[in-house]
Amino acid sequence: MTTIHELNPRDRLAVVEAGVITADLDQAAAEYGLLYAPDPASHQISTIGGNLATNAGGLRCLKYGVTRDAVLGLEAVLADGRVIRTGGRTVKGVVGYDLTRLLVGSEGTLAVIATATVRLRPRPIHRPATFAAAFPTIAAAGNAALAIVNAGLQPNLLELMDRDTCRAVADLRNQKLEVDAAAWLIGQSDSSDATESTRSMVALCKKERADVAWATDDENEAEAFLSMRRMAYPAVERLGLTLVEDVVVPLSRLADLLVGIQDIARRYDIRIPTVAHAGDGNAHPVVVVPRDQPAAPMIMKQTAQDIYRLALDFRGTVTGEHGVGLLKREWLNEELDDTSLSVQRAIKTILDPRSILNPGKGI
Amino acid sequence: MTTIHELNPRDRLAVVEAGVITADLDQAAAEYGLLYAPDPASHQISTIGGNLATNAGGLRCLKYGVTRDAVLGLEAVLADGRVIRTGGRTVKGVVGYDLTRLLVGSEGTLAVIATATVRLRPRPIHRPATFAAAFPTIAAAGNAALAIVNAGLQPNLLELMDRDTCRAVADLRNQKLEVDAAAWLIGQSDSSDATESTRSMVALCKKERADVAWATDDENEAEAFLSMRRMAYPAVERLGLTLVEDVVVPLSRLADLLVGIQDIARRYDIRIPTVAHAGDGNAHPVVVVPRDQPAAPMIMKQTAQDIYRLALDFRGTVTGEHGVGLLKREWLNEELDDTSLSVQRAIKTILDPRSILNPGKGI
Repeated sequence: MTTIHELNPRDRLAVVEAGVITADLDQAAAEYGLLYAPDPASHQISTIGGNLATNAGGLRCLKYGVTRDAVLGLEAVLADGRVIRTGGRTVKGVVGYDLTRLLVGSEGTLAVIATATVRLRPRPIHRPATFAAAFPTIAAAGNAALAIVNAGLQPNLLELMDRDTCRAVADLRNQKLEVDAAAWLIGQSDSSDATESTRSMVALCKKERADVAWATDDENEAEAFLSMRRMAYPAVERLGLTLVEDVVVPLSRLADLLVGIQDIARRYDIRIPTVAHAGDGNAHPVVVVPRDQPAAPMIMKQTAQDIYRLALDFRGTVTGEHGVGLLKREWLNEELDDTSLSVQRAIKTILDPRSILNPGKGI
Repeated sequence: MTTIHELNPRDRLAVVEAGVITADLDQAAAEYGLLYAPDPASHQISTIGGNLATNAGGLRCLKYGVTRDAVLGLEAVLADGRVIRTGGRTVKGVVGYDLTRLLVGSEGTLAVIATATVRLRPRPIHRPATFAAAFPTIAAAGNAALAIVNAGLQPNLLELMDRDTCRAVADLRNQKLEVDAAAWLIGQSDSSDATESTRSMVALCKKERADVAWATDDENEAEAFLSMRRMAYPAVERLGLTLVEDVVVPLSRLADLLVGIQDIARRYDIRIPTVAHAGDGNAHPVVVVPRDQPAAPMIMKQTAQDIYRLALDFRGTVTGEHGVGLLKREWLNEELDDTSLSVQRAIKTILDPRSILNPGKGI
């Protein structure tokens, strides 16, 4: 039985056990008009501890920050059994090294997080406005995301779905796609000028050659757009053996990344349906290989590696919110320099000399 | 000669040498409609490297985050002369441990930061609206700050000045204080609904018994309020020997902290003019002792220690944005538990075994 120990609306914080489900915490906060901002796609099943271990993002982290930004303090168990308390209950604090953020994203390799004090934000009070735009090329959709972010319009989400993803969702729903675009961009504003702001986003999409672009203040219409996005993974997982990837590039290279992923798909003659937290430059290409393909593991690995290389060539990273785990360990050398790796391993060694914490994963 | 190596408006980042002055970076960013958010009171003289070393805050960190939140990556020199590169150029990234944020706030004790890649935000485009309210007690001002933050109004600054500070500023300016209030609260909104939002803040101040409360959209009037705040330190420094303190409490205890600081002043029969980044619960009490008081150092130390104890009693921290330095080293034991301290010292030892980096300071 996992518990929310404290939900404190005056200090806008919650003290929760690591096993609490993300969506449950957010729902509890909502009762006080508060928001637990990190909303990974898995928020209905993922735990706060899991979010902390991977520094999870999500859709609304574009405006409200990732898990790292929502943590005030931690209680964790070290490899030698000692309990460590980091951070505290204040929004600012600079006593000692930031062990809180050293543990966040450490994938369980430095300590076992038991309890977290997390920051809650005021829940947006304005009725959101939402837009969807269909583009003739995936590059145009990526460029529209760049234009929207750089116009300072501050969407609270800005998601991209490519053609293969949209088709898969339509198939899953037994629907016909009315517009079979190369890519869709779905965005939302929850600011006080949401309607006007979303209208500006639509205008920017049209400037980037969107074929169609709608905006709405109606929550049911908005839900129709957003449910497409939420069904992306279940829909593409039906297409074959799948590997969900997670790379990030500086936003100006998002269009190039998306085009490059399509090139890789062509090269291997496979499909790589891709969704992206476009405003963050964070793409989730899903490598799909037919179930009856005997070389599937090899093809998936090679494809993923080509995607990592592409992200690094654009000065990006091989993982934005999913972590290193097992799969990307051999890429640590590619992204981190020797000095950084040696410091990271030294920290691992002092905290877990016998390597008993999540052995073989991460650093 | 220190340099901004790159200012990239498309990726909204800058690559800067540690010696660049904070205000210069923000001014360079402003030319592209961008904001370098951290604005410590010392921004006209403080360097980016100094900000990073202390994880500096400032007025607008209430809305836009502290230095930690503005950093994407670092290049630093380790004690053994090796150069380490941390982080990168993307807004998300979870490869390896967060060495970037381990170095931020480490007060130069782990590495010498040479270059930083910092995140720039869109500069607020709406005309700000500003309010000022005078309160009959300092507790009422603290409670008004709590009410404003918890109403979700998201001021971009919310500053408190007590009576002694206001009087000192008036003296410095050879002005007469029209309203000799126990405390003033000055707030600003730069949202699209700034005028309406600021009006709500004024209403909340009145509800907390403010004697007078004005709001204005006029920048000159706003500047008159804000210049008071900016002159606080120069004004109180004329009063005697001064020690600027820096404690933070959970926001619900801000009023108690402020009242407690006044009690301490009475106990030692000294003045402790106090300003606060009220929205963050971060108070800067300035301990003032007459220059001709022979026991001044002892009184200052004792007073500061009472203030630290008060902050810790309210589950706060002994430093929110200035750091541990020399003065607060003996308080590390009070705020951090033994396990945390031993882990922090182990990290220090592996990175700087001969303790040559900022010896005797911080951890």
